[in-house]
Amino acid sequence: MSLSLNQRTTKRWSVAEAVEGCVRHGLEAVGLWREEVAEQGLAESVKLVRDAGLRVSSLCRGGFLTTPADPAPGTSGRASGGTARRAALDDNRRAIDEAAELGAACLVMVVGGLPGVRPGEPLPGEPLPVVRPGEPLPADPDGAGRPFSRDLAGAREQVAEALEVLAPYAGERGVKLALEPLHPMYCADRAVLSTLAQAVDLCLPYPEEQVGVVVDTFHVWWDPRLFEEIARAGRRIASYQVCDYLQPLPADVLLGRGMMGDGVIDFPPITRAVAAAGYTGDVEVEIFNADVWAADPDEIVATMKHRYARVVSV
Amino acid sequence: MSLSLNQRTTKRWSVAEAVEGCVRHGLEAVGLWREEVAEQGLAESVKLVRDAGLRVSSLCRGGFLTTPADPAPGTSGRASGGTARRAALDDNRRAIDEAAELGAACLVMVVGGLPGVRPGEPLPGEPLPVVRPGEPLPADPDGAGRPFSRDLAGAREQVAEALEVLAPYAGERGVKLALEPLHPMYCADRAVLSTLAQAVDLCLPYPEEQVGVVVDTFHVWWDPRLFEEIARAGRRIASYQVCDYLQPLPADVLLGRGMMGDGVIDFPPITRAVAAAGYTGDVEVEIFNADVWAADPDEIVATMKHRYARVVSV
Repeated sequence: MSLSLNQRTTKRWSVAEAVEGCVRHGLEAVGLWREEVAEQGLAESVKLVRDAGLRVSSLCRGGFLTTPADPAPGTSGRASGGTARRAALDDNRRAIDEAAELGAACLVMVVGGLPGVRPGEPLPGEPLPVVRPGEPLPADPDGAGRPFSRDLAGAREQVAEALEVLAPYAGERGVKLALEPLHPMYCADRAVLSTLAQAVDLCLPYPEEQVGVVVDTFHVWWDPRLFEEIARAGRRIASYQVCDYLQPLPADVLLGRGMMGDGVIDFPPITRAVAAAGYTGDVEVEIFNADVWAADPDEIVATMKHRYARVVSV
Repeated sequence: MSLSLNQRTTKRWSVAEAVEGCVRHGLEAVGLWREEVAEQGLAESVKLVRDAGLRVSSLCRGGFLTTPADPAPGTSGRASGGTARRAALDDNRRAIDEAAELGAACLVMVVGGLPGVRPGEPLPGEPLPVVRPGEPLPADPDGAGRPFSRDLAGAREQVAEALEVLAPYAGERGVKLALEPLHPMYCADRAVLSTLAQAVDLCLPYPEEQVGVVVDTFHVWWDPRLFEEIARAGRRIASYQVCDYLQPLPADVLLGRGMMGDGVIDFPPITRAVAAAGYTGDVEVEIFNADVWAADPDEIVATMKHRYARVVSV
């Protein structure tokens, strides 16, 4: 296993700058994001990584496969039903094509939350009223008309169904989809895939080269079944991502990812388990953190290398 | 099943005020907290609930059983090792005694996080240094000397060991310990018990009347194994607590508990599963939420009753 820089860790860097940074710091691989690749241009991004001799350890990200049903009349005009579903699948086919062009080891899939719930945003629609003692009861809705769904099992079913369409497409293009279970605190708005066990179950019906899983320490460190599930995943592990879990979490929980050693995770047993399962790919450091993003990116990469050697690798 | 007010939902109310509030709103049960019971006085609290004819659906809370090892020389003087462990067990014996006096249906156990990590506080000790490119490497600690532990498996073992001591003590006093799995976002600082499956496994070695589990919708709604584990828990379910999971979470994630209907949880399937498992006790509404705490407590109780009927019960 060797160290890779996920470019979101050095958020200020473009693809060109991240590639240069990797070379300057002696890293052999980089994890790219679609947004930054689009800004740089796909063809130029491909040329940059090839000329630098870097591996692309992952492309982030596909997913957001959970879409609302057709809206009730008079509700918001957000894409929904068949339209939203087709748009999500089309976007994922484009992501697969991009991953193929880049020769990425996998396309990371963040599967999406409850249909109609947007990442980090308040729930859409009118909240239920309060009841004031001594006054007549308010109108008595049960929230059924709000333009989002609380059907978690149904959302999980949608993910499985989308995979039936996308896995063969990925297979034709030589791309491996990497299903990422996210920490349960993101279940409502980012990923209804909440445990490694769920991710492993989802990928088993497909060929190993088409669908695998991501083990991201931030998302799975708490799981009582972690080590059994890493072993069960075996060669299905398509990506090993590391960052620490900060205590306390910051106000925006998305940014609770810390430099390894700054939080509560005991990395070596997890790294050993991932290695024992047969993973021989790159280890990506992916940190969403306001302080890290404010710092000098070269300092971040130097610190990351040092911490990887001291705290993560075994 | 019938509705109970956990007194933390109406945080401004003393035990006396909460008891009066329950009577005024026609509730038959109340969940009490040790701190408020101590302020009111244990004997007076017992008299208040008996005179009002209320059931005490739970006493919150025992737990915090995970204690640091003896500190390294020169580090903080926090209680640790044998001393901290004995203090935690003694405090839990007192909590059991109080639950017995109150005739509480159970003592809710929040088992504690990683040893040395305090709820909501930054990690103690000196953080690891950053590395500045071109400068000499900083001293090379791996954080081993920080006065907290990252040994999650060890912390979970401590909980199992403490239970061996406390369960028989609870049994002698006719008190049922109710192990509460907390949402994984509290794993580091509040409870290393993160799933219902873990809680059920922990209680099975003990008689049903000594150790059970809490099903709290906020903590378990995301769990892909929720319905299987509720069925497996069966009559081990000692408490069913409801509140919603807010989206997005507030800055202090402890306060992300919302009034039923204000968040993302689909309650009826969970309520049906708990009933099908054989639970016939009270349903406590326990909401930690700055807006709820700022509102008129009578409005909160009236709203809670209305929402319970519309959104939770089936």
